[in-house]
Amino acid sequence: MKFRRSERLIDMTDYLLTHPRQLVPLTVFAERYSSAKSSISEDLAIIKEVFEERGIGTLQTIAGAAGGVKFQVQVDKEESISFIRGLCDLITDPGRILPGGYLFMNDILGNPAIVQRVGRMIASAYVNTDIDVVMTVATKGIPLAYAVANYLNVPVVIVRRDSLVTEGPTVSINYVSGSSKRIQTMVLSKRSLAEGSNVLIIDDFMKAGGTVNGMISMLEEFRANVAGIAVLVEAEQADERLVDNYLSLIKLSEVDLKQKQIKAIEGNYF
Amino acid sequence: MKFRRSERLIDMTDYLLTHPRQLVPLTVFAERYSSAKSSISEDLAIIKEVFEERGIGTLQTIAGAAGGVKFQVQVDKEESISFIRGLCDLITDPGRILPGGYLFMNDILGNPAIVQRVGRMIASAYVNTDIDVVMTVATKGIPLAYAVANYLNVPVVIVRRDSLVTEGPTVSINYVSGSSKRIQTMVLSKRSLAEGSNVLIIDDFMKAGGTVNGMISMLEEFRANVAGIAVLVEAEQADERLVDNYLSLIKLSEVDLKQKQIKAIEGNYF
Repeated sequence: MKFRRSERLIDMTDYLLTHPRQLVPLTVFAERYSSAKSSISEDLAIIKEVFEERGIGTLQTIAGAAGGVKFQVQVDKEESISFIRGLCDLITDPGRILPGGYLFMNDILGNPAIVQRVGRMIASAYVNTDIDVVMTVATKGIPLAYAVANYLNVPVVIVRRDSLVTEGPTVSINYVSGSSKRIQTMVLSKRSLAEGSNVLIIDDFMKAGGTVNGMISMLEEFRANVAGIAVLVEAEQADERLVDNYLSLIKLSEVDLKQKQIKAIEGNYF
Repeated sequence: MKFRRSERLIDMTDYLLTHPRQLVPLTVFAERYSSAKSSISEDLAIIKEVFEERGIGTLQTIAGAAGGVKFQVQVDKEESISFIRGLCDLITDPGRILPGGYLFMNDILGNPAIVQRVGRMIASAYVNTDIDVVMTVATKGIPLAYAVANYLNVPVVIVRRDSLVTEGPTVSINYVSGSSKRIQTMVLSKRSLAEGSNVLIIDDFMKAGGTVNGMISMLEEFRANVAGIAVLVEAEQADERLVDNYLSLIKLSEVDLKQKQIKAIEGNYF
């Protein structure tokens, strides 16, 4: 069965979008559509142009026998900033302030469309970094970690506060929570992470950075490397920040419990 | 700026795939491409045909002033069954057996591509069901719940074993774990779920069904309705199953600790 160009373009778009960061040999498409490689190359040129124009991503072409095409996610910076400003407006609703100065964010983190969008933004910042795995700590960072990992085509490992019978042997470390200064424990299944892995650390929220710091200590136990750190929201507490090199999408610049006021601005991602 | 048909088809495919189950008025596309609605309708007819032919999904067209087009995810049953058989082979690796007869599944659940694929399969079974929210219990079910919810365009609520300061007021219930017969606690943030919501319960693994049963009790507290129950893996224990109406993709038919043997077959989804 022969496919028309219009049909090929639609199916290839779906295929590339659902196989991010995977090298697809041109023969895969040529066989899929019983088409000549030259036609497939023309199709890919059109797709690449539209993807770049619309801020969807880009196609990398690798020449040679082991070559092919790879979809890399990208985002439109202008669209991203207006999306993040919209999120800032959502977050600064005074009804979100909980006792202790915490913010209720379940509804935001519970919205898969928001999580996907944020994950895509973070992933786009790391498409050219060597990353083998995304790590997060249970539970709030999990959805975001998966969204990022999906776009980067790498697995997710989840650090826990307690060990589970379904995890097998684990490595456990103690760390000091940055804000409460209490000693806490983190556990990771031994089978989860290979020595020498390059790890992107993801979390939803960073205050002083104690939890992220704990994950960095965990990586040392596994002789793995920190390839990057990214959080959705950081609270501004520059004087006692435990972590240096990180990416944040939103920065809480003021949480005033008495006045019930929150201020949020774009993070250092922009 | 005018767009050629080939460009429109690529961008519309991306738009529809990233906005599942959302009604998109034709004017959105007409304005986006400065094209006549009649051209957009023709484009959509081509996309619909390819989506259906390739098992990507379908487009529902709603006529009238409040009308538009809606992408509904679908899966190809044959492809799905061969994918699930591949997963069964992965799962039956004797190295997965942990003390107590538990199975190590972190690597499978940590693979975003597998989770997306499974989520898509589950979502396709519920596209015509009235669902307002997806519910799961922390932590292993979370990635799958988000994958399903993303395709269904609904939020996720996460039941926890313990309450967190960042959740605000919570409702707590006790339930009996089906396999260990112990009393356990489940907690859900009060703000998370509206009365009368139609809820799809998702989990990674179901043994006797105690945890799913606990979630059903939680829904009663919120006067919400069970719209469906779906799990990735069920362990065969028909004699003491606490839950009736559910969907499973994989059924463990035998876990023999002594012989280090596991048997897994397709679940009742097929």
